[in-house]
Amino acid sequence: MTQDTVTVTPPVIILLRPQLGANIGACARAMKNCGLYELRLVAPRDGWPNPEAAPMASSATDILDSAELYDDLASAMHDVTLAFATTARMRDMVKPVINPREAAQKTVEAPQSSGGRVAYMFGAERSGMDNDEAVMADFIVSADLNPAFSSLNLAQAVLMMAWEWRMAALATKPSKDANDDWPELATIQDRDYFFARFEKMLDERGFFATAEMAPIVKRNLRAFFSRGTPTKQEIRTLQGVLTNLERDKGAQ
Amino acid sequence: MTQDTVTVTPPVIILLRPQLGANIGACARAMKNCGLYELRLVAPRDGWPNPEAAPMASSATDILDSAELYDDLASAMHDVTLAFATTARMRDMVKPVINPREAAQKTVEAPQSSGGRVAYMFGAERSGMDNDEAVMADFIVSADLNPAFSSLNLAQAVLMMAWEWRMAALATKPSKDANDDWPELATIQDRDYFFARFEKMLDERGFFATAEMAPIVKRNLRAFFSRGTPTKQEIRTLQGVLTNLERDKGAQ
Repeated sequence: MTQDTVTVTPPVIILLRPQLGANIGACARAMKNCGLYELRLVAPRDGWPNPEAAPMASSATDILDSAELYDDLASAMHDVTLAFATTARMRDMVKPVINPREAAQKTVEAPQSSGGRVAYMFGAERSGMDNDEAVMADFIVSADLNPAFSSLNLAQAVLMMAWEWRMAALATKPSKDANDDWPELATIQDRDYFFARFEKMLDERGFFATAEMAPIVKRNLRAFFSRGTPTKQEIRTLQGVLTNLERDKGAQ
Repeated sequence: MTQDTVTVTPPVIILLRPQLGANIGACARAMKNCGLYELRLVAPRDGWPNPEAAPMASSATDILDSAELYDDLASAMHDVTLAFATTARMRDMVKPVINPREAAQKTVEAPQSSGGRVAYMFGAERSGMDNDEAVMADFIVSADLNPAFSSLNLAQAVLMMAWEWRMAALATKPSKDANDDWPELATIQDRDYFFARFEKMLDERGFFATAEMAPIVKRNLRAFFSRGTPTKQEIRTLQGVLTNLERDKGAQ
């Protein structure tokens, strides 16, 4: 196999509830074209493996063979420390929105020393990504497409992101990482454990005025806490705060 | 229909001998996503219209309906003054090779005053573009993809080029064109008329030492004459030279 010219670690591609096997295959081809190899599938509609994937993958069946299957998004993020949610639609959510080129730049600039991975998340073909999925990302990625017709085919969206990453990666010289002593970041799953525990606590304490508002307020809290890209130590500290609060409650 | 935010004229997409209707449909969708609307088909394998195109086009069937059908590439270039040939393979040809981002930049910088169009050319799915087609372009566009797997799906290649154009176009402010007084450029078809006549003359004069070498030498001549992006006046002058040379021959 010819050695690739890119020296930085490529992002992971996460497909959320993908519907068509053919699209998964086409995504694998687009990934391999750009030198990406790690595909994670969260609850694919027709199960996995899917025999309809290989014909559209051309020679990228190695990516299909090594694709990882997950039941939920948080598990798929077990080693991810920086995540980008691709979506055409704007969200009622305080999340920074950037374009694919900016996402690529942030990906290649991410500190690699801690071993945490970068993920690009893609929603299902028809329904896209829901707000509770998008909120788990650090950034919303929105491509400035034709406003009269902005819905990209799934594999086309993967190609666009993968290509932008590749162009940014090719422009990046391997050098001593200026962020080598950056503290180890929390994974998205670390964050999710914290959020889930925090939300449960708020529920139990009757924090939410109405059941209707609860999911919206939870999402806003998740968005706020994620915005600073917490380190592992910071999430440990926040978990400590929850432990402390629970103890108080028990003591009452 | 929502007004698009791009103000420069988009390039024309030319598909050479496309094989699968589904791919033509997917190309139309990718075009419309990025705000491109003019599709030209040269000798599609299964004829045109093709009922397999619409399902993959999603809401871009307007592009399929207005697609233009041509028998040969030169006719498809009747109003094209700047052409880019996309191909993964390097050619034994003295043509500048640029990447898709550079092609996009050249496209938005092309003088628009003369009314000449810019075209992006794509070869057939399996066979790609042959040398006699590629030589008609001003530039070869080669994407620096994974050397272990560089073959893009046709619609993915169109999306990549269209997206790069869109990003360049969005960064271009509508302003007085600095090249407004650029002389009117020859179309690729104008060039082709000249080349065909020139080559016929050389053939008749026994210019080519061997029949084997003739196509290669012809291609090299085409590459050389195209490299300067001739104006209409320059091609007229060259045609005048041929007329003159033919007259000499008759007088002998």
